[in-house]
Amino acid sequence: MARVRNLKEILVRLKGLSQLMVDLGYAALIEDDFELAQEAIRVKAEIRELSYELRKEALLVARYTKDSRHDIPQIASLLQIGVAIKEMSDGVDDLLEVVIRNVGVHPIIRMAYTRKELRTMRFVVEEGSLLDGKKLEEVEIDLKTGFRVVAIRRKEEWILDPHGKTRIKGGDVLIVEGRDISIRKMQEHVKGPKEKAQEKNSK
Amino acid sequence: MARVRNLKEILVRLKGLSQLMVDLGYAALIEDDFELAQEAIRVKAEIRELSYELRKEALLVARYTKDSRHDIPQIASLLQIGVAIKEMSDGVDDLLEVVIRNVGVHPIIRMAYTRKELRTMRFVVEEGSLLDGKKLEEVEIDLKTGFRVVAIRRKEEWILDPHGKTRIKGGDVLIVEGRDISIRKMQEHVKGPKEKAQEKNSK
Repeated sequence: MARVRNLKEILVRLKGLSQLMVDLGYAALIEDDFELAQEAIRVKAEIRELSYELRKEALLVARYTKDSRHDIPQIASLLQIGVAIKEMSDGVDDLLEVVIRNVGVHPIIRMAYTRKELRTMRFVVEEGSLLDGKKLEEVEIDLKTGFRVVAIRRKEEWILDPHGKTRIKGGDVLIVEGRDISIRKMQEHVKGPKEKAQEKNSK
Repeated sequence: MARVRNLKEILVRLKGLSQLMVDLGYAALIEDDFELAQEAIRVKAEIRELSYELRKEALLVARYTKDSRHDIPQIASLLQIGVAIKEMSDGVDDLLEVVIRNVGVHPIIRMAYTRKELRTMRFVVEEGSLLDGKKLEEVEIDLKTGFRVVAIRRKEEWILDPHGKTRIKGGDVLIVEGRDISIRKMQEHVKGPKEKAQEKNSK
């Protein structure tokens, strides 16, 4: 039973991670942003690890299953999901190449994508900033403010689909999707007191 | 200039189509739904066609560009996007295999994904139904009702990111994402008067 629970959790997480990686890949390309590309590569590392776990667990289910041989094609379908996610993440890798080789994104790419109102960006929450220690719902990160936190990276751990009760901490990396204007406002909220003070002085 | 506009439109559409295909692929798997898999395959056909257009247009840009040879790596990056999207869509194809081979989705897949509140489903809008001829905003398809129309297929044309002013027509196929309860309510709205009458009579 523990094995089944384990497989279930691996599948849920792999689905979330692969969708996040596709979004990050496009965002890295559109923003021509090396940091966003790095985040996508981090997601990829976890996908690779979990795909391996998926294969192992699927084989164990195949070994210990008490049911008929009819189950074998079904268990093969579990392995198939691993293959699929690997291939999708390879595709995103090809997108990232464009950013990482640092040849400069072609102006047409820029033209094609920048008219879109929605942007995906990456913010580091500084300690002592407005967001540090607050729940997502407290800082009104909802549709009223025009943006949505898609994922949070806390050190090497990804929090997928964060909800209102999720508390933000200093040092968190937020992946945010939203309207261009809201995103620029957001840049204020993640700044720590030190950087804010420096800005005041420089005025 | 027409060429550049063309390339731009191809890129925007390829991005939208590839994200739609990933979503449809997972939805087909989660719902073990052959129809959803067919929709994903339709998206794939357009991706293939547009990828070819992208390559052609990129080569033409390379031929006619008046700038320095420095531009060549940038134009290569346009081709790279085509490769990336192809690879992502191959990945989704592997997911679809599970549904199309019709071996039955493994119970663990079902367990893994059905606890999630959000579902993606496909609805055919019948002629004379509540939705027929209405704008999206008129039928309050927004977050208040708990669902969102991700895409509309009208015959062989995909409308990506439909907005409030988009008018729904009888025969349209809606790809809808939303809460389980809202999705079930939705099933009422797409039914034509004939089917509704039959239901009444059978009561």
